[in-house]
Order: sequence, then structure tokens, then C-alpha cells
Amino acid sequence: MGREVRPIAYPRGEVRASDFRVVEVEVRQPRAGEVLVRNTWTSVDAALRLRLRQTAPPGYFPAFPLGEPMDGIMTVGEVVESRADGFAPGDTVWHAAGWRDYAVVEAGKQALGGVGTLTKLDVRVAPPQVYLGALGGNGLTAYAGLFHAAGLRDGDVVWVSAAAGAVGSLAAQMAKIRGHRVIGSAGSDEKVRYLLEELGLDAAFNYKRGALPDLLREAAPDGIDVYFDNVGGDHLEAALGALRGSGRVAICGMISEYAAKEPPHGPGNLMLAVTKGLTIRGFRGSAHTHLLPEMTRHVGAWIREGRLRCHETIIDGLSQAPPALAGLLRGDNTGKTLVRIDGFTHRENAID
Amino acid sequence: MGREVRPIAYPRGEVRASDFRVVEVEVRQPRAGEVLVRNTWTSVDAALRLRLRQTAPPGYFPAFPLGEPMDGIMTVGEVVESRADGFAPGDTVWHAAGWRDYAVVEAGKQALGGVGTLTKLDVRVAPPQVYLGALGGNGLTAYAGLFHAAGLRDGDVVWVSAAAGAVGSLAAQMAKIRGHRVIGSAGSDEKVRYLLEELGLDAAFNYKRGALPDLLREAAPDGIDVYFDNVGGDHLEAALGALRGSGRVAICGMISEYAAKEPPHGPGNLMLAVTKGLTIRGFRGSAHTHLLPEMTRHVGAWIREGRLRCHETIIDGLSQAPPALAGLLRGDNTGKTLVRIDGFTHRENAID
Repeated sequence: MGREVRPIAYPRGEVRASDFRVVEVEVRQPRAGEVLVRNTWTSVDAALRLRLRQTAPPGYFPAFPLGEPMDGIMTVGEVVESRADGFAPGDTVWHAAGWRDYAVVEAGKQALGGVGTLTKLDVRVAPPQVYLGALGGNGLTAYAGLFHAAGLRDGDVVWVSAAAGAVGSLAAQMAKIRGHRVIGSAGSDEKVRYLLEELGLDAAFNYKRGALPDLLREAAPDGIDVYFDNVGGDHLEAALGALRGSGRVAICGMISEYAAKEPPHGPGNLMLAVTKGLTIRGFRGSAHTHLLPEMTRHVGAWIREGRLRCHETIIDGLSQAPPALAGLLRGDNTGKTLVRIDGFTHRENAID
Repeated sequence: MGREVRPIAYPRGEVRASDFRVVEVEVRQPRAGEVLVRNTWTSVDAALRLRLRQTAPPGYFPAFPLGEPMDGIMTVGEVVESRADGFAPGDTVWHAAGWRDYAVVEAGKQALGGVGTLTKLDVRVAPPQVYLGALGGNGLTAYAGLFHAAGLRDGDVVWVSAAAGAVGSLAAQMAKIRGHRVIGSAGSDEKVRYLLEELGLDAAFNYKRGALPDLLREAAPDGIDVYFDNVGGDHLEAALGALRGSGRVAICGMISEYAAKEPPHGPGNLMLAVTKGLTIRGFRGSAHTHLLPEMTRHVGAWIREGRLRCHETIIDGLSQAPPALAGLLRGDNTGKTLVRIDGFTHRENAID
């Protein structure tokens, strides 16, 4: 028997544990070409919120059907039984059937989201769960956003919002590694300390401590060239104000809007895109899977060299996935939010 | 003696003739390196509104000082007296000291706005005033917007808003010439007829005749790939809804917002840029003066071949420049709005 977390109601506003149910299901034997995986870690991502609604935004992955297992959530685990070439019991793999403890996965079948096709992982590079963050979808989003969507150029001053989050903390560090002046923002003084002391950013601020344009001006008196956006709303508006000529915005998400009951107001100063010649580009990491080998090579090396830190917020126990998501969306977590499926406690973990 | 139109008050909302005054000034003799020009045509552009305020938007040309001549407005004229090499009486030239009947211009001095540096025009290619529209800044804006900012690709379906306007009518025609399916929108049924019958667009609609998303869906049932934006506001929002994956927006202006007393609301659906991987690029034609020779070559040929039509709304008399601007901003005019400085009547003119 196995357990799965299934949505039973679409949240209104904040995600609540009662919107989900953990159900017991029979785990069937793998057929030819399939592998049975015991999941050990599963990913918790803000963007899941976009699928927890009647209709997901056009162009995005479809809404999670109520009462069904959630497909397209990255997870890592250990192969228990294999009837597929190239996979053997004991292999560490990733796939996209998360939020459950056992999964039967078809080898070679393209996963929803691209990154999660059943793949053997090299645990000599990093512990398995890092493949859900820096070496997985989050790393790809940060990498594709900075180096492709934003087209980072030498000397660019970069602002990363939600910089203590799973993607933001990677984008901020990658920009630092490439020699940029990097400003980070987050929603608590503790996170700001993390940005300055742990990640070594050049400046950081708590966006709750004043008016965003003022805080940003203080952190970047001469303006910015690139804004890596994970927040939207007032953050994007402040960025448009601070961007210099030919500046660029890479938007990977708009967490400030995910739970909005009313359609949000967009930035009121978009005309600055015209006068300053700005480029605003939305993107999804999953649209850049061709960059995965390149990203993995770079990020793997940066981790080995101790230049890129993978901070994790670990929540133990499969049944805690919904509150983990709620906490992430509330801004409680630092770094990558992970559920350790067999664990029983809640702690933070820094892999340096 | 000469006459100049000078702003004496910044308009609140709509531009009024009483915000300007025509003053008589003494025309001085040109010094060494200067040329005296009798202006014959002067340009009327929506974007002038951005400079008729206390502070122009950051990154844009500075506000027009009250009580001073307006600098940086394209004009064509005839050299009356020259003390500069390369210019002789009778030459047709353009420069950027418009909204006056005589101007003393320094040869070689970079004009505010780039395009308007004193230049001799080849009137065998087109009549002088066409250099204020299709062969000038408007042509450059349309050309740079489509082929650079929007990165037009084979097969793209293109929506041009304000498509009966100076820039829009050129962008729409250029996209047609390059073989695209082109949808145009405008603010009157008469303009829609012009778009369909004169410019031969594939579809066109009057945005006042229904809800924009519906009108756009009817005109482009399978969506659009490129939106050439001159309007902003609800038009941009509708475009984000209709754009297909990897779609692009080139914004050259946001005429719907120029006279706004409150900061406008931006598009509430910017998150679609993320899910659909959209690129939104603001740009100014004047930031692309390096494309001027290339644009002039193409557009000159298209005019000669009868493939690109230059519709003009001509207002006669220098003193009529302010009402001409007010009319343009109200949506009264089709094609390029021009003031014929020595004229006395008001008529429309189509150069095919």
C-alpha cells in the first residue's frame, strides 16, 4: 500500500491543509518498461498554486483535477523494482510523480514539465534532494532567467526579488559568481541577514520596511540593469522605475498574485519601458530544458567549489506537504522547500 | 520677422489651443556653419504630449519649457541662405526646429531626437512632407518596432493598434508587404474601412464597438504572435490574452495614457507573459537611427512601387498646430498629421 496527497478542494486565498487529503492506494507491480520508485524527497513549489484552481492560466500546465493524484511535481527516490532498461534497484532517480510515497513510472515517457522524465541521478555530484532545487527545475529557472531571458551582460547591476527563495537564492548567487553587483530583497529581517551574510550579496532589504522605490533607491542609488522577478505587483513597478536604459526584466513568477481573488493591477508605469527601451520577458524554466546539461555542469562545479550554497527548508512527512506549500506561499521558508517523505521532524538544513 | 508656436501652460487632460501662443520673433542672420531655413511642413506627433508637462517621463526627451520655442520637432523646409558647406539656397532639408516658420540651424549639430540633424532630402524619392512620416521618424518607429523590437518572424500573425495612425498605418503595411496576416484596430468605422479598403489589411475592427478581447478573438480566432502597441491600457491587456506562445509585443507609445490625470493601471494579466513565454519590449524609433538608411531604402522602394501608401491629414497654417495636436490625440486624424505652414485650408491628401 502507498500514500498519495490529493487536492479535494481548490483553495480560496491561502492554501489550507483541509484542501487536501492523504489517501491510501494499492501500489501495482511495474509492467514492462516501467520502474517502481520509493520516493524519498518531493518538491514544494510556489507555482503549484497556479494549478490549484478550476482553470490554470493559459499556457501553463493544466489544473490539478480534484480527487486525483497530482502529476508534474518533481520528486527523487530510489528504484525498488525495475522492468526498464538502464534502471536497477538502488538507483537514485528523479521523476514527476511527487506528493506520494511510491510511484510506478514509465521509462522514457516525457514528463509533464519536461525536466521530470525518469532520469538516473549522479549522487556523487550532490545529495539527491539537490536535484529538486539547484540541480533541478529551480536551478534551470534561475540559469535560464539570468543568462537567456534577461541576457545578463558584463557590468549589469541585478536586483533579485524573493531572493531568499528557492529560485531567487540561486539567481542571486549565480549573478554574484559571474561578478555582478547584486541586490536582493525578501520579506523578513532574518532573510535579509541570510542574503548579506550567507549569500554575500552587495545589498539587501526587507520590502516590508518601507516604500519599495525608496528601499530600492537606497540599495541601488544609480539604478539597476536587470530585475529578476518572482513577485510581480509592486515589485515589478518599482523595478521599472529603477531600471536604466536598455534594462531587462526576466519574470519567472508573480507570487504576489497567485492567491489574489481579484485580477491584480499591473504596473502603472509601463510607459517607462518605452522611454527607457526596456525589455520584459516572461519565461518558464521548463521551456528551456535544452539548457539542463549546461546548467548542471556549471552549477555542479559551483557547488563542488563551495561557491554556490543550497539552503533547504525541510518539512518531514508526506502528509505535511500541504502545510509546507502554505508556509512557502506565506513567506515562511528560506531556500528550497522540500518534503522528506519518510521523515518525522521539521528542521532547516544548509548544504555548503 | 518670423512666427513661433510656444507653450504657455501645460495642458490638464486634453490639449487646448489656449495652452499655446504664436509669437513674432526677429529672424537673425545665419552665422558661419549655419543655415536659414523657411519651414514648409512641420510634424504633429502624439508623443509631443509627453513633453507638455512639468516633467517628462524618465528616459524621454525633456519637457518643453513654457514660453520657449519647442525644440526637437521634425520639420522640413527650404534653405533660404546658407553659410554651411553642403547646403545651398533652394535645397530641401529636414531639421528638428519645427512649429515655427523660419529657423536658423547649425549644420552637423546632433538634433535632439537623433533623426532631425540638418539633412538634405532627395525629393525625387517622395515629396518633402513624406520625410516627416513614412521616410522619417514614423517610418523608423514602424520599421524598428516590427523588425527589431518585435523580431518579426515568418508566419507571425500581427495585430497593430491605432492602425490608421501615422506609425500604425506604416507598421501594418510593412507587415503586409512582408507577407503577414495583419489585423488592425482603430477608433471609428471610417478608419476601419480605410484599413480594409485602402491598406488591404486582413481584418480590422473599431475598438469602440464591443469588448476588446471579443473583437480581437473574432479578428484573430487562432490568436496573434506579435502586437505592435501604440495605445497601452486595455489594448495591451487584450493582446497579452490573445498572444500565442513565444509571442512578442513592441510598444512604441501608450496614447491612451498620455493625458491621464491618475497613474494608469497596467495590464492585470501580465502573468500570461510567464506562462506563455512572452517578450514585451518598449522602444523609441530615435534609439534606432542606425536603421535609418536601411529603412529609407526599403520604404522608398515600397512607395515608388505603389506598395506603401502615405495617407496624410493636412492642417493648414502654423497657428493651427495646437488644434492639430489636440485633434490627433482625440483620434480625429487618419495617417500622418502635418501642418502646412503657409497653407490656409484644411484637407486630407492621399499620396499613393
